Amino acid sequence: MIKEGKVYLELSLPSVVSSQMEVFYNPQMRENRDMSLLLLLSLPFERLKVCDPMGASGVRLIRMLLETQKVERAIYNDINHRAVDFFKELVERHGLRDKVEVYQEDACVLLRKLRNLHYVDIDPFGSPVPFLESGILPLARHGVLAVTATDTSVLSGTYPSTCLRRYGSRPLLSAEFYHEVGLRILIKKVVEEGAKSDFSLKPLFSYSYRHYFRVFFQKDVGPKRADLLLESIGFILYCDRCLYREGVSLEGLRTSCPHCHNRLLLSGPLWLGELWDRELVESMWRWKDGLEVSENTLRILRRIREEAGLQTTGFYTISALGKALRIGQPPPMERFLEVFEGVRTHFTGEGFRTPLDHSEVLRRSHELLQRA
Amino acid sequence: MIKEGKVYLELSLPSVVSSQMEVFYNPQMRENRDMSLLLLLSLPFERLKVCDPMGASGVRLIRMLLETQKVERAIYNDINHRAVDFFKELVERHGLRDKVEVYQEDACVLLRKLRNLHYVDIDPFGSPVPFLESGILPLARHGVLAVTATDTSVLSGTYPSTCLRRYGSRPLLSAEFYHEVGLRILIKKVVEEGAKSDFSLKPLFSYSYRHYFRVFFQKDVGPKRADLLLESIGFILYCDRCLYREGVSLEGLRTSCPHCHNRLLLSGPLWLGELWDRELVESMWRWKDGLEVSENTLRILRRIREEAGLQTTGFYTISALGKALRIGQPPPMERFLEVFEGVRTHFTGEGFRTPLDHSEVLRRSHELLQRA
Repeated sequence: MIKEGKVYLELSLPSVVSSQMEVFYNPQMRENRDMSLLLLLSLPFERLKVCDPMGASGVRLIRMLLETQKVERAIYNDINHRAVDFFKELVERHGLRDKVEVYQEDACVLLRKLRNLHYVDIDPFGSPVPFLESGILPLARHGVLAVTATDTSVLSGTYPSTCLRRYGSRPLLSAEFYHEVGLRILIKKVVEEGAKSDFSLKPLFSYSYRHYFRVFFQKDVGPKRADLLLESIGFILYCDRCLYREGVSLEGLRTSCPHCHNRLLLSGPLWLGELWDRELVESMWRWKDGLEVSENTLRILRRIREEAGLQTTGFYTISALGKALRIGQPPPMERFLEVFEGVRTHFTGEGFRTPLDHSEVLRRSHELLQRA
Repeated sequence: MIKEGKVYLELSLPSVVSSQMEVFYNPQMRENRDMSLLLLLSLPFERLKVCDPMGASGVRLIRMLLETQKVERAIYNDINHRAVDFFKELVERHGLRDKVEVYQEDACVLLRKLRNLHYVDIDPFGSPVPFLESGILPLARHGVLAVTATDTSVLSGTYPSTCLRRYGSRPLLSAEFYHEVGLRILIKKVVEEGAKSDFSLKPLFSYSYRHYFRVFFQKDVGPKRADLLLESIGFILYCDRCLYREGVSLEGLRTSCPHCHNRLLLSGPLWLGELWDRELVESMWRWKDGLEVSENTLRILRRIREEAGLQTTGFYTISALGKALRIGQPPPMERFLEVFEGVRTHFTGEGFRTPLDHSEVLRRSHELLQRA
């Protein structure tokens, strides 16, 4: 018997979790589910109608029902009949029969038949791209789309042609903030998929953890709102010699680094707007106290709370600065934060964001690293 | 009683055709259906399975059954029960009951439940964008997706923010070939919608007629084929002073006209590849003899036969050249074709394509127009 939150699961885990498991339950996605719960608790709706169209074990929905007290209707779907049977058993055991609907069909077909949902969770194996268009449709106004992408290596640049094909954007593996670029490409894709049907999908909360990216989007309707979001889509220019970085529109593209005249690398189109709604982050932070969340969930949230206060495009890392300035043995992170007036990022332990412009970062880096 | 091809329709037409008609039949779309038939006849398959998911009167499918002799199964769908009843009556009257399947549901939901189709026709009111993802899925390898867009003013640049939102591209209303730009943006969108799921959708035959654009795409599968198509997506740079035009990749973007140093206008991303497969055009031309097609269909085909032999990016028009060179009273089209070694385009009666580069076009224009 496994316990996650208030849910008891009769499962024995294999040594390697894979999609070949009879009923898919991944304990490493606990944080993913914790975040869903914190988000739901923070939503200004009561009596929620939620849907997990690729429900697998269904633990996410059961936790939502047991731990938030505000889900009125949970719609479960999985194409695999073993998963469906497992979920039904789970529903019975936890006495939730009156609150769930169970389907066993193609996720996109089901999503296109539903309406007025407050929350839809797109959490497939691999890329969420095939599910975005269908997942956006059934959401009510102000409803939330949760999107998990496990194809992070594609988004981050290990397979650039796949990124271009699947997401329509060029990644930026050479940058120390390549994961952030990947997440911004994912956001762009969701914004685009919404905009094409006059919906705005505004990113509220984003993070990168282990092998996946995850973003919550709030849906609104109308061409003007969609157009407004599109204004935040652009490109990142990056110099892999001096670490210069800049977010620009199509008009602002240039080829030569304004700092060191090296050839600039080009990434995008991608989302240049904010990754976090600060109020939501604070609300999720408050709700954590009433919930059984993992240590890792707390760690991510704590970092993001700081990070949301300084939402720069890209960040620096100690090792990238050391390499660019050809200086080893850097001082500890605390010194960096102090000197650069910076905050840590949840993307990597050696990364920090700073409000300073690039020339100033380089100037202070020289001082700091030479003194070290 | 109306007759189109071999189909008899018991309908009386209102003075204005609109989506408010009880059963939608638009006689002005006759050419659209003629082209479908010519395409089907040219396909290297027998025993076709075809689908018209927004079937309306259903005349397209009935014509395919009666006039091509190679459709084994015709799948009709319309969300409107009056249209469905009308179609069923039509099927009975023409004795085709054994060959049709009739549905009355959401077009995208139905498309996602079908498989192995040789031909799918996306011909909605307005933009085809909401139907592309679903329309590509049920096609067999080498099957054909027909896409009609009636939102030509959006694609051609009258509403640039709508174009950006819906198609993800910037149109180019200032260019004399703005319709071609719109068509290339439509193609890009379909190519992208295929590529995101590892499908290649290769444009085979495109045209602009009255209030709509229409393109036939052949589907193939696999990331490499999709990547190859994506290589033909780029931008058009255009000078609205000297008419300079150039197709470029993201890397090739520049802001100043290489000819007259005016600020260049930027359009795209869009399809820079060919608009016509010449073999297919020839085949359609041959099949016309066995078919009852309209005079207009013949006229379009005749122009495109020439045009497909000289597939430039954009074309010139007599009036744009006259305006750019500030010379009125131009000589007749025949002189232009001769001097510029050109061919007419079906896009507009005063347009021509030329194999000459832009400087040479301007040089010869000066000569021609000054002499005129």
